[in-house]
Amino acid sequence: MPAQPSQKPPETLRADARENRERILAAAREAYALHGLDVPMAAIARRAKVGVATLYRRFPTRDALVTEAFSEQLAHCVAVLDEGLADPDPWRGFRSVVEKVCMMQATERGFTQAFLSQFPDHADYAEEQSRAERGLSLLIERAKDCGQLRRDFEVHDITLLMLANSGATAGAGADAPAASRRLVAYLLQSFRAGSTAPLPPPVPLELRRIHT
Amino acid sequence: MPAQPSQKPPETLRADARENRERILAAAREAYALHGLDVPMAAIARRAKVGVATLYRRFPTRDALVTEAFSEQLAHCVAVLDEGLADPDPWRGFRSVVEKVCMMQATERGFTQAFLSQFPDHADYAEEQSRAERGLSLLIERAKDCGQLRRDFEVHDITLLMLANSGATAGAGADAPAASRRLVAYLLQSFRAGSTAPLPPPVPLELRRIHT
Repeated sequence: MPAQPSQKPPETLRADARENRERILAAAREAYALHGLDVPMAAIARRAKVGVATLYRRFPTRDALVTEAFSEQLAHCVAVLDEGLADPDPWRGFRSVVEKVCMMQATERGFTQAFLSQFPDHADYAEEQSRAERGLSLLIERAKDCGQLRRDFEVHDITLLMLANSGATAGAGADAPAASRRLVAYLLQSFRAGSTAPLPPPVPLELRRIHT
Repeated sequence: MPAQPSQKPPETLRADARENRERILAAAREAYALHGLDVPMAAIARRAKVGVATLYRRFPTRDALVTEAFSEQLAHCVAVLDEGLADPDPWRGFRSVVEKVCMMQATERGFTQAFLSQFPDHADYAEEQSRAERGLSLLIERAKDCGQLRRDFEVHDITLLMLANSGATAGAGADAPAASRRLVAYLLQSFRAGSTAPLPPPVPLELRRIHT
């Protein structure tokens, strides 16, 4: 389940307060996507054109703001995993989760960072994170058992894939979704060790885009 | 050829000046590897325990310092490509260049950044860069012509691979070389579209290591 907000639920807020709240959440999502989660609260208040006091009244902590800003994305992520697990074809379920999560990573930069790395101690996120890890392990076992995923694939290879995808998409700028699609297709083919599937079109990335 | 230094060649320097010079270069390599190329000249002077004036006397510009700091790595990179091109087996040559360049990227963070992205206008680097691109294209054509590299592989896939490798190694910390080996093995297998080669051991990366 998405995390509970730590402030009054939206339906009890007056119209102008609700508008402020939505503006803060939109500003937070933009700022996190552009600069990661280290953006100061004051910068988010400026971007949302509200006072810092207003921001803190609605969202007393950075955790509360991050959780609320990404509650939709978190729900989407949970749904993607549940769909993958419900697929009667374990390989198709596995592939679909990998593709969708990597595409989210390519298009919603702040969210993946929030969910996967920066809030290990945030109770709501920690619960979702454990659930995601259990779900992934189950998907992997099933895809191996039906003989479609290589036996030496490990759950940590998902992290490797996502780190790789993070590098590819961070470096590809506006081509991030295309870069992610091609990289994921290459890797899935190797994960499956089957026939040569056609790849998405190549991405016109210059060597100088590499910057780590 | 490695770039020419823009200051007096080392053999004409007195012993203490030569020692200063080596200390500055070592400090620069450390700082670039840790923090990328944006490290201020003053921070490098502090790390090398020399005055800022001394640093600027030896290396009048940041370009000059970067070029000298990485001249060995640049020579190594050129040698790797030449060896790959000289291999009578084009696939082995291609694979070896990919593996060695990705391993350099995993272990010499500052250098790859310097060479590939940040100094497009630096004449010496630009020349090496064009040469590298021509060499890579030739390797790729040969490996395709002998039927071992898939036909739909593109030179831009090398950039994609290196961006992915950059993400994997930046996120893997001390496990960077192992993460790079496994990622590159997965990708090479997919590039070749042949039999299932055994992979290097998995890397114990936690999901929370992802941070982009």
